Amino acid sequence: MPTNEIETLIDTLIDTYCAAWSDPDPKRRREILESVWTAGATYTDPTVHAAGIDALLAHIGTVAARRPGAKVIRTSRVDAHHGVARFAWRLVQADGSMLPEGLDVAEITPDHRISRIVGFFGQLAKE
Amino acid sequence: MPTNEIETLIDTLIDTYCAAWSDPDPKRRREILESVWTAGATYTDPTVHAAGIDALLAHIGTVAARRPGAKVIRTSRVDAHHGVARFAWRLVQADGSMLPEGLDVAEITPDHRISRIVGFFGQLAKE
Repeated sequence: MPTNEIETLIDTLIDTYCAAWSDPDPKRRREILESVWTAGATYTDPTVHAAGIDALLAHIGTVAARRPGAKVIRTSRVDAHHGVARFAWRLVQADGSMLPEGLDVAEITPDHRISRIVGFFGQLAKE
Repeated sequence: MPTNEIETLIDTLIDTYCAAWSDPDPKRRREILESVWTAGATYTDPTVHAAGIDALLAHIGTVAARRPGAKVIRTSRVDAHHGVARFAWRLVQADGSMLPEGLDVAEITPDHRISRIVGFFGQLAKE
């Protein structure tokens, strides 16, 4: 597959993943996430470690209940190599205000699904 | 262990790892890396995937031969949670010039050794 087609595929994969955080309907969140998440994939950020799709959907549900109408949008290019990809994102609240930018590192399987996300919050502080 | 002691431990771990990239002597590089690298740990950046200490030492040797006297220095705080840590670094050449800042994500075992590094080069481009 040409490089630019793979890049487009990975961009779409990441944007679909972000969409699973942004849909107000729990059933649609599950459908969207199932289309990109491998069985047993894990999600880890400073606040949570969620193993498997049910655990991640429960966590997204908690965040959605706390911030109704919030969306997660990708705010950088996707920088990928060797089946790993980094990208920046922000949580945009219903009133348009945004939380500090986060950074996710995704592990991507050869058949273009996500098997792991490790997330970090905010800017990386200078030493 | 108090949080600040764990932070200091992880900072030292990462700085020791960076020192393994910065020592001109291959024997000392091995000694330094052995003190922090687990058996079978992997290193992956856009240019290489190195599994095990010998493969990584060979790669560092290639870089050292290409850029004699270069050092890798950490340029951010270490931001760690759940056994993963991100940090920024730069390669400083013998003449003081620097390559663009990179970002590494390290996986850290419960006994404070590094089991994996995934690295990215340069700034993450805005969308």
